[in-house]
Amino acid sequence: MAEIKKIGVLTGGGDCPGLNAVIRAITRTAILEHGLEVVGFVNGYDGLYRGNTIKLDLDSISGILHKGGTILYSSNKTNLFRMPFTENGETVYKDLSDVGVENLKKEGIDVLIIIGGDGTLTSARDFHRKGVKVIGVPKTIDNDLTCTDVTFGFDTAVTVATEALDRLHTTAESHHRVMCLEVMGRYVGWIAIQAGLAGGADAILIPEIPFDINKVAEKIKERREAGKDFSIVVVAEGAKPVSGEMVVKSVVEDSPDPIRLGGIAEQVSADLEKLVGLESRAVILGHLQRGGSPTAYDRVISTRYGNAAVELAMEGKFGHMVTLKGNNISSVPLEEVIGKLKQVDPEGELVKTARALGISLGD
Amino acid sequence: MAEIKKIGVLTGGGDCPGLNAVIRAITRTAILEHGLEVVGFVNGYDGLYRGNTIKLDLDSISGILHKGGTILYSSNKTNLFRMPFTENGETVYKDLSDVGVENLKKEGIDVLIIIGGDGTLTSARDFHRKGVKVIGVPKTIDNDLTCTDVTFGFDTAVTVATEALDRLHTTAESHHRVMCLEVMGRYVGWIAIQAGLAGGADAILIPEIPFDINKVAEKIKERREAGKDFSIVVVAEGAKPVSGEMVVKSVVEDSPDPIRLGGIAEQVSADLEKLVGLESRAVILGHLQRGGSPTAYDRVISTRYGNAAVELAMEGKFGHMVTLKGNNISSVPLEEVIGKLKQVDPEGELVKTARALGISLGD
Amino acid sequence: MAEIKKIGVLTGGGDCPGLNAVIRAITRTAILEHGLEVVGFVNGYDGLYRGNTIKLDLDSISGILHKGGTILYSSNKTNLFRMPFTENGETVYKDLSDVGVENLKKEGIDVLIIIGGDGTLTSARDFHRKGVKVIGVPKTIDNDLTCTDVTFGFDTAVTVATEALDRLHTTAESHHRVMCLEVMGRYVGWIAIQAGLAGGADAILIPEIPFDINKVAEKIKERREAGKDFSIVVVAEGAKPVSGEMVVKSVVEDSPDPIRLGGIAEQVSADLEKLVGLESRAVILGHLQRGGSPTAYDRVISTRYGNAAVELAMEGKFGHMVTLKGNNISSVPLEEVIGKLKQVDPEGELVKTARALGISLGD
Amino acid sequence: MAEIKKIGVLTGGGDCPGLNAVIRAITRTAILEHGLEVVGFVNGYDGLYRGNTIKLDLDSISGILHKGGTILYSSNKTNLFRMPFTENGETVYKDLSDVGVENLKKEGIDVLIIIGGDGTLTSARDFHRKGVKVIGVPKTIDNDLTCTDVTFGFDTAVTVATEALDRLHTTAESHHRVMCLEVMGRYVGWIAIQAGLAGGADAILIPEIPFDINKVAEKIKERREAGKDFSIVVVAEGAKPVSGEMVVKSVVEDSPDPIRLGGIAEQVSADLEKLVGLESRAVILGHLQRGGSPTAYDRVISTRYGNAAVELAMEGKFGHMVTLKGNNISSVPLEEVIGKLKQVDPEGELVKTARALGISLGD
Repeated sequence: MAEIKKIGVLTGGGDCPGLNAVIRAITRTAILEHGLEVVGFVNGYDGLYRGNTIKLDLDSISGILHKGGTILYSSNKTNLFRMPFTENGETVYKDLSDVGVENLKKEGIDVLIIIGGDGTLTSARDFHRKGVKVIGVPKTIDNDLTCTDVTFGFDTAVTVATEALDRLHTTAESHHRVMCLEVMGRYVGWIAIQAGLAGGADAILIPEIPFDINKVAEKIKERREAGKDFSIVVVAEGAKPVSGEMVVKSVVEDSPDPIRLGGIAEQVSADLEKLVGLESRAVILGHLQRGGSPTAYDRVISTRYGNAAVELAMEGKFGHMVTLKGNNISSVPLEEVIGKLKQVDPEGELVKTARALGISLGD
Repeated sequence: MAEIKKIGVLTGGGDCPGLNAVIRAITRTAILEHGLEVVGFVNGYDGLYRGNTIKLDLDSISGILHKGGTILYSSNKTNLFRMPFTENGETVYKDLSDVGVENLKKEGIDVLIIIGGDGTLTSARDFHRKGVKVIGVPKTIDNDLTCTDVTFGFDTAVTVATEALDRLHTTAESHHRVMCLEVMGRYVGWIAIQAGLAGGADAILIPEIPFDINKVAEKIKERREAGKDFSIVVVAEGAKPVSGEMVVKSVVEDSPDPIRLGGIAEQVSADLEKLVGLESRAVILGHLQRGGSPTAYDRVISTRYGNAAVELAMEGKFGHMVTLKGNNISSVPLEEVIGKLKQVDPEGELVKTARALGISLGD
Repeated sequence: MAEIKKIGVLTGGGDCPGLNAVIRAITRTAILEHGLEVVGFVNGYDGLYRGNTIKLDLDSISGILHKGGTILYSSNKTNLFRMPFTENGETVYKDLSDVGVENLKKEGIDVLIIIGGDGTLTSARDFHRKGVKVIGVPKTIDNDLTCTDVTFGFDTAVTVATEALDRLHTTAESHHRVMCLEVMGRYVGWIAIQAGLAGGADAILIPEIPFDINKVAEKIKERREAGKDFSIVVVAEGAKPVSGEMVVKSVVEDSPDPIRLGGIAEQVSADLEKLVGLESRAVILGHLQRGGSPTAYDRVISTRYGNAAVELAMEGKFGHMVTLKGNNISSVPLEEVIGKLKQVDPEGELVKTARALGISLGD
Repeated sequence: MAEIKKIGVLTGGGDCPGLNAVIRAITRTAILEHGLEVVGFVNGYDGLYRGNTIKLDLDSISGILHKGGTILYSSNKTNLFRMPFTENGETVYKDLSDVGVENLKKEGIDVLIIIGGDGTLTSARDFHRKGVKVIGVPKTIDNDLTCTDVTFGFDTAVTVATEALDRLHTTAESHHRVMCLEVMGRYVGWIAIQAGLAGGADAILIPEIPFDINKVAEKIKERREAGKDFSIVVVAEGAKPVSGEMVVKSVVEDSPDPIRLGGIAEQVSADLEKLVGLESRAVILGHLQRGGSPTAYDRVISTRYGNAAVELAMEGKFGHMVTLKGNNISSVPLEEVIGKLKQVDPEGELVKTARALGISLGD
């Protein structure tokens, strides 16, 4: 095996608490344990394309362990295998991955550690297929990557959502209201169901289980009859009504307050107000879930992932992605990970637990 | 002066961290210090109207100091001096305050402590004018009441908004974005300016200073030229463009992401994306600012207010509202407080400080 | 299998964030999913001995999900199989477990769910051996129980310790100091190593790896030479010097400040001040680690554990303890769990990661 | 008035959340508003003595607003007017303040802004007496400086102490214990009384009111008789028994757990265990109160103080210290501030409120 002397790092996709902790662990392990050089590509694959790098040494990663975001910045959409260009007024796509390969050679980089979600890791696999020595580190705030129990950032997102639920509870109770919190999760309901369990939600609506708003309304009415005239509903942004239709169409004319119907939580809120007769309000957490300081849990996983990525590189396990299984760090070929979606099992233990506790899944 | 034996308490208007701490301090002071009885009216003035009360003793207020919301619940809109009824298909308003007076007599309540904002305290004053022995406790999360330096709940709201800004900062930086945070304040910019100062905002838009979106855009461009290609904008919900118009009208056709233009922060965000050319995102904090556990600061003020309200009652200072001036608890006649709005002074020290630090106020 | 109609619950040992969430999940699952009755024994085994119970229904467990402590209270040391009595001036021990069995019968309890650590679960096993239908739920803030990846409370303890490290960092840096934080862990270093990794410690001393204070001092001197004249040391309360001796004996005469040498962190701090020549301070976290609201992570595990305990009971898996393996809830016979200690592996991945990052383990 | 072109800044004494926010506001106001140059002295007066400076520009203060500690470092004890030297085996003190004055001239510094507590500001006043243009910024985590309502850092300390009390409450309740929390305050009880009020303490012991441990024990027994068999005691580190004596002398022989009697909270805890018969535990918050990120409140005050310090300099108000009175920033001559101690008034409203709520002050 050719000796490894220099490692490159890039972060792709949306930001995620723990990215800096991964970068720090990679850099420290590479330098202190293996005497390697480390450079980071700026703005994800865009930096790989432009050859835009910064040196990563002990100074440049000092004090970043607890910081959100990524010191290497990110570029959500750059895909070197399919770069868009305008020719004769039309968008055409070109494979410019060779430019990336060339830039790695120019920089003398032996191994490229790529930290990202499914999209970013798809390119990682494609670079590996082209012969680039690649190690993947899974990153998904939604927790939708297979082959690993969990990834960093997810615990922080659940924590932020749970703190929000704690705050909304008292308002809901004091004002006899339904409070609907929209959390991230376009395709999966992991944040919704875990935050919902942690925050004592009464209904949890996730993409994996299409909901019937009348069932949710029934649940809230039941509570009302039992003397609890307030309810908390957690809605994943990708939750969908089973019929594709909601009660309130687009403008709420019969409500004293103007209600914007821009997100699913606002739809759900408007419908519940109409169906149940309790005041209902929606809050959309949005970017609050993905920024800021990672939880202790995420900092530990991130640090272990970064360390493991360098160790995988030293062992020559190229094309692999770091994974966490139980308490053990291991790895899996990127080929096995890509293009799959880890969804909440509608018949699984988490959902069953929610149901057993009396939480409505909207079905 | 007739002896006081029994005190009534009610909380009106939107919920506010610290309400329970006030109720607890009133109850403990009344019982332990003065041997009084205490009852609470349920759902604010609605409870006064219906004679709906619960006994407040040491047990019922145990463990509520740190809890958000109000154990007495609240009714946002009930005004006994102007109750709406439908007669012949039209809404007519009747003064049913005598029902409240009657219920106080029935309950044997000597003094009524009313905790609320301008609306709630207006009724308090009106009851005082009718001869009811009333003490007011100021409550406004927006900090818009005059005659007192500050009220409880405001510090918690500023804290929640500042934590949100801390989280948004790292996303903004990692993605070269403009992040716009909408905070409470329909008529006043107190939360916006304090959270903006505490959270390191680059622009703060408040109702007191109509903004020119082009000026905000210039500020962000300036930062970009100085190498900072991200910015944080805090927008009070009541901030208004100077011309009344925004750049992006109602649907953002040229953005890759659908942007809802439902609140002022979304308008500001859409405009800035167009004017500056950086991705821009909006987050609306909404109810997260008014629920949940009060800060230590708010718990201390609330406790002092509750204690002081009972002391004012014992001193016979009816028709007065508790105030905080510097470190001192004092009081002022409700007549002097009602109907005034404490706004941020556009020429005052807070605004000047913001400007001196290089923060744009949008003008 | 005899039908189950009534479940008993008790919590033993030190308090632990998440206990109430377990109790809540047991109660809700038992009542809502299976139509059972539930009673709690007050003060752990002491309540079983005295027949001191309270009914657990939906009302009694309302609002406790996020609360620290246990609504059933706990008794650290009661062991019905070995109750101490004074006879003729001497302490004699008697097996009074039959009293417990009798009380279960009197109450008509079919299954007893026992939540506790190794000591509490040893009695659980012993009751099972006597024919009592027992289900165990693991509880250990130290994370020292085998057969399960993790238990509730641990994540909260690590979180509190990490927040403390974040706070101490800035003081250490501003004052060129060594700050030593003592965390829980008499026999195991789980909290120390995870908080140390999450909080960016420079040295982590754990019971599993006896430390040489001179090695720790060397590490700090190295950092100083590299321009970092401050350091953070995390010390598990059970950390031991390899030789059994420390440099500073019992009173620090040559220090300007009086240093109490009451805990190992204070010993370590005093020694490092002497050996390195930097001011050094100790902080002992103590009870702050085990009280208060559980993290979202701990609330989710606790809820799943509580639910699973009831399901195990319904499946007739008596004598089993709930476990978490990866993302899966499962169970294991208590016989396999008792009397073992899950320690940090001195050659394991966590320790290797710490070393690779340049953290001293004191050896 | 001679034109001001360059400002120097130094931070003295113990670290305090908000110091960096002050430095940032000074630097931004000086550069952006007035076009001045700014330098910082490293390690407080030690840097002034050695001429050890760093340039403060917009880059060097970027991202420090929310960081604890001080980027200028601090030196607790250096006093240029009384520098200790060893001559013939004896310590002699020399006034070397001229060296400081000389270094200011060499650096071309027109005004020196000094941020510190009573000790640091005493030297500030002395430099002013020597003709140096000095502006003071009050800094005291203990809140013991006169002439200003409050200073930065205090709110953060109270917040940390209150969070600790919230955590200890659940342990105390679950285990029927007395929990004693020692907070900062050698000479004043501000943190103790405010955190005690905010955290629902049952007894608060402060330096201003010597305590009788039997009175505290009575209070706890009273609670026990009323069915509350746990209590929370907040003890300022400078609290003193009225007689100078405690019940438990120095080693607790009759306790099952070894109790270290190193601080006053441990004395109080040991005594209460003996006098009341409930298990009792002490926690010493120590440095956790002064490190870490400042609260939003402290960040706002710090920012306003920093801005005001530069404005005072521009107005020529040398020898003045910035103050906060109510909502207004103002100033006062250092001569009026020095050597006074702002104590909690034993007859004041805060103490009366505590008593009225049933809290024992130990007298």
